Amino acid sequence: MMQLRGKPPRAAAAVQTLRIDSGMSSAMQQLRHCHGLARVLLPGAHSAQRLKSNIPLASACSGLLSLRWGSYSSDNSHRGHNYFNTRVPKFRYVLTGLVAGTGAVLAYGFHHSKPERAAASVTQTSSLPVYTQDEVSKHSSLDEGIWVTYKGSVYDITKFVSMHPGGDKILLAAGRALEPFWALYAVHGQEHVLEILSEYKVGVLRLEDCKKQELSNPADPYSTDPPRHPALVINSSKPFNGEPPPALLTDNYITPSALFFKRNHLPVPQIDPDKYRLQIEGLPGGAVSLSLEDLKTRFPKHTVTATLQCAGNRRSDMNKVKQVKGLNWGVAAISNATWSGASLRDVLCHYGFGPEVAAKAQHVQFEGLDRDVTGTSYGASIPLNKAVSEEGDVLLAYEMNGEDLPQDHGYPVRVVVPGVVGARNVKWLGKIVVSEEESQSHWQQNDYKGFSPSIDWDTVDYKSAPAIQELPVQSAITQPAEGAVVDRDMEEVTVKGYAWSGGGREVVRVDVSLDGGKTWHVAELQSGKKGQQPAPPPPPGRAWAWKLWEITIPLPEGAQELELVCKAVDSSYNSQPDSMAPIWNLRGVLSNAWHRVKVNVK
Amino acid sequence: MMQLRGKPPRAAAAVQTLRIDSGMSSAMQQLRHCHGLARVLLPGAHSAQRLKSNIPLASACSGLLSLRWGSYSSDNSHRGHNYFNTRVPKFRYVLTGLVAGTGAVLAYGFHHSKPERAAASVTQTSSLPVYTQDEVSKHSSLDEGIWVTYKGSVYDITKFVSMHPGGDKILLAAGRALEPFWALYAVHGQEHVLEILSEYKVGVLRLEDCKKQELSNPADPYSTDPPRHPALVINSSKPFNGEPPPALLTDNYITPSALFFKRNHLPVPQIDPDKYRLQIEGLPGGAVSLSLEDLKTRFPKHTVTATLQCAGNRRSDMNKVKQVKGLNWGVAAISNATWSGASLRDVLCHYGFGPEVAAKAQHVQFEGLDRDVTGTSYGASIPLNKAVSEEGDVLLAYEMNGEDLPQDHGYPVRVVVPGVVGARNVKWLGKIVVSEEESQSHWQQNDYKGFSPSIDWDTVDYKSAPAIQELPVQSAITQPAEGAVVDRDMEEVTVKGYAWSGGGREVVRVDVSLDGGKTWHVAELQSGKKGQQPAPPPPPGRAWAWKLWEITIPLPEGAQELELVCKAVDSSYNSQPDSMAPIWNLRGVLSNAWHRVKVNVK
Repeated sequence: MMQLRGKPPRAAAAVQTLRIDSGMSSAMQQLRHCHGLARVLLPGAHSAQRLKSNIPLASACSGLLSLRWGSYSSDNSHRGHNYFNTRVPKFRYVLTGLVAGTGAVLAYGFHHSKPERAAASVTQTSSLPVYTQDEVSKHSSLDEGIWVTYKGSVYDITKFVSMHPGGDKILLAAGRALEPFWALYAVHGQEHVLEILSEYKVGVLRLEDCKKQELSNPADPYSTDPPRHPALVINSSKPFNGEPPPALLTDNYITPSALFFKRNHLPVPQIDPDKYRLQIEGLPGGAVSLSLEDLKTRFPKHTVTATLQCAGNRRSDMNKVKQVKGLNWGVAAISNATWSGASLRDVLCHYGFGPEVAAKAQHVQFEGLDRDVTGTSYGASIPLNKAVSEEGDVLLAYEMNGEDLPQDHGYPVRVVVPGVVGARNVKWLGKIVVSEEESQSHWQQNDYKGFSPSIDWDTVDYKSAPAIQELPVQSAITQPAEGAVVDRDMEEVTVKGYAWSGGGREVVRVDVSLDGGKTWHVAELQSGKKGQQPAPPPPPGRAWAWKLWEITIPLPEGAQELELVCKAVDSSYNSQPDSMAPIWNLRGVLSNAWHRVKVNVK
Repeated sequence: MMQLRGKPPRAAAAVQTLRIDSGMSSAMQQLRHCHGLARVLLPGAHSAQRLKSNIPLASACSGLLSLRWGSYSSDNSHRGHNYFNTRVPKFRYVLTGLVAGTGAVLAYGFHHSKPERAAASVTQTSSLPVYTQDEVSKHSSLDEGIWVTYKGSVYDITKFVSMHPGGDKILLAAGRALEPFWALYAVHGQEHVLEILSEYKVGVLRLEDCKKQELSNPADPYSTDPPRHPALVINSSKPFNGEPPPALLTDNYITPSALFFKRNHLPVPQIDPDKYRLQIEGLPGGAVSLSLEDLKTRFPKHTVTATLQCAGNRRSDMNKVKQVKGLNWGVAAISNATWSGASLRDVLCHYGFGPEVAAKAQHVQFEGLDRDVTGTSYGASIPLNKAVSEEGDVLLAYEMNGEDLPQDHGYPVRVVVPGVVGARNVKWLGKIVVSEEESQSHWQQNDYKGFSPSIDWDTVDYKSAPAIQELPVQSAITQPAEGAVVDRDMEEVTVKGYAWSGGGREVVRVDVSLDGGKTWHVAELQSGKKGQQPAPPPPPGRAWAWKLWEITIPLPEGAQELELVCKAVDSSYNSQPDSMAPIWNLRGVLSNAWHRVKVNVK
């Protein structure tokens, strides 16, 4: 598959109709520059044979491309995937078979080496049975068989599952399309992978199921939210809140932007980069208004690799103790990316910040351009000393992982406050105010604070606790999963996970137990991309990025069940509390007790 | 009592013999300027009546004063008090009856308002029985009776114990002299206190017991160590390591210097302040040599209130899990003081520190003037960014609590590194080296590091762990004590303690439980001297001082035993681990699990 470096979609606008030749690559090459919504038709799409059975167009899905998918139900408790519940407001009939895969490539910029070889196979499938998406979806368990779709074809890969080099992760696509998953793993672009897949072909997908559509609802403020990767586990669709499956999370030291957890408080604002202005107030020279171009050209570009974590990460574990209020995040409301932009310190100093301001001001407030129905913006603030410290590394970021910020991550500009809770890393940044007081926003004053387990909704006084800024030390197991079966004949078990601490405190050790915390083993830490030389250690107090960790431990003789536990230690030698109940709090934040996972040995 | 502002003793040298008039105050006034060893004789000390029974000189103890006491046995495991095991190398016969009290006043600068009224009573006691110190010492329990001595008189205060406004603390002096304790609590200087005491007088102390003495051993490198307050619980006498009793510790937001825990690694060096020089190396202009006067006059004087904690604080709790190596500290190897001196940043910048140095150097090493038998100095280092940060508040301190540093705390100059483990706060500072590497001293490389509980002395690799710098969040209960009896009729129990965190992270909450951690109550925090307006909150990341806390909780109905627990939360929302076993480490450092105290309800 050729390399596609698409920019993220901003507003579905232009439609491009492209004729694709047999190799498809020149057309795809053109798509490379397509920022809008593209429709691509295969040659002969209207031939009689194809029209007869509706197969041809179904097959032609492989060439039809939409940049929009993944509008989910509004049920906030829904944690499933609605990959095919696609809505494209401005185009009633958009075929989406291949869409996801290629769309993902365009939308998120993943790179494949030999993408289109399979296209040839599409046209050879007309003699096979036609299946509906419903029929495919039913085959999502080992009992019912594991079916997947790829470029309009249907495959029964049940027998392949145990041979999959990537292990159980293949089940994430069960009953669904492979493309968005393969978009994340370039290895699947190899010819032999497609050859293997072709052995399992059992049918083709019905045309209608490539046409999944929905009338646009302009009254819905979320109707213009961007597409999301279908692998994300959804905690809320409006506003969108999703996290990657744990096993995918720790496959990459730098989380692909598409998989990076998404925590929105409000609808994603549609911002025209040419009209974007960042206001700055509270500096001696008066109000400042900066364009995106100003930010990019007037200030040096700094790049920082920083992990962001939602205050509610692992809330589901706290929920098991006693019900809390909040999105039921699993262990993956945390991700790691490379951020680039102007240094907040540079910008503030350029516009007059100095000792005179520092003598009065104590906070730097941020306002987003995302607004609720009353027009109130999302807002938060950080302490002034963090904002202006040379060692604070706070960015006005316009790039994530080397590309423009994705819409969900604050396009065109967000704040990145390394070491500080996600909630202060304000996205779609509209205004900065240097002030004597904290942000007065709901999210600073009456949310994102920690309380004693003794405090309930009758007794809570939000003024009694400080706004969360730096987060405590955290770690979690991402593999194996709860309830997984460990093969006794393997004689050992491999455990993987992540560890991170707030405030730039480096994780210095992760201890792993197989027996619920009675005995411990020291895991190996990974602090850079796998296979590459580890980065030099960060300066003290500036370890903004997580560590991935892994350990292989011999199975205890005769064990039927293992209670895996991990706990991390940071450079201040803070460690995680043993259990959740004593740190339980009514909002379910700061959930950083030891992570425990039970698995069976068979 | 007049106010005495004595400087700490440096070397016992001159002897002053002063005649004291009936009011004693003019003589005491002269003592105010006495920095050496003073002998004070009462008028009529040689009268026949007194010589007969040896009482007169015993009584005269009240006027005989040594600045040296408290040379303890060399048994490192000894945790008792040897107040009367006094050694004064240069003066074979030194009477020590009152010594401690007045000595403490001179040595540590405590202030009393009406100290000498009791002197009159001394001369009225000749008709009472004479007791030996041994006899007095046997009366140190409620069963045997509680006896104390004061100015050569013996008192049976058994019946007063339950009426003591300061509660059980009075038992600290059981079988011993009151003076050193009263020196800490000015309230005892009031006339009515002496009147109350006089009601319990039962005898006078034998002369020989005021003459306790010991030949000096010049070969003993510890022979010139300074006197210490007898209330200190001793974990090792050579080198001296002692901590205050928990209940005394939290009586003062600012710990009196005499009670501040003392952690020496080597003999206390004798330093002539006029000859003292501080060497600085590693700066572009070449080596620098500074006198004490230079430090005091060339740089602004900064004052910081900072808590210091030994890495081994609460090691005794960890020892209960499994034996560790190290001094068996209780909960009081932590104290809080006000430190004044030059800012390390100012000094380094003055002598050429700048970006050029910062580009290469990463550490600032400190060498003490305390040396072992091979001539090797105590040494440690801190990260450069802490040393030179405007917000690091690192001091080259020459004052503690408004007076010259006491000998035990590094006279004439020590480093104070707020937020960082005591071990890096190098005392008797002789040299500073700005360097690319950490201190290579034993204490930086092969001690003061944390390890997994799985690591033992066969497997430990000191290179695998970072040197402890910032400490994790900590708290402990100081009252009631383990095994104390709570009166059921009181219907409630008051629990007190301290809480602190490293790295300038402010303690924001302390939770207290009466039921072993099942339910919790939020304690009230005290962040300044009691009764005074609390200090304004420190800037974020610069909360160097502890918080004292207190809470009164209704007794659970029918409870026979309470398991009191405390746990603190800091501004990064780090909390303490629940239990010790999972943070156990072979050196017994970083012992910060919940503190648990069992008491009985009767």
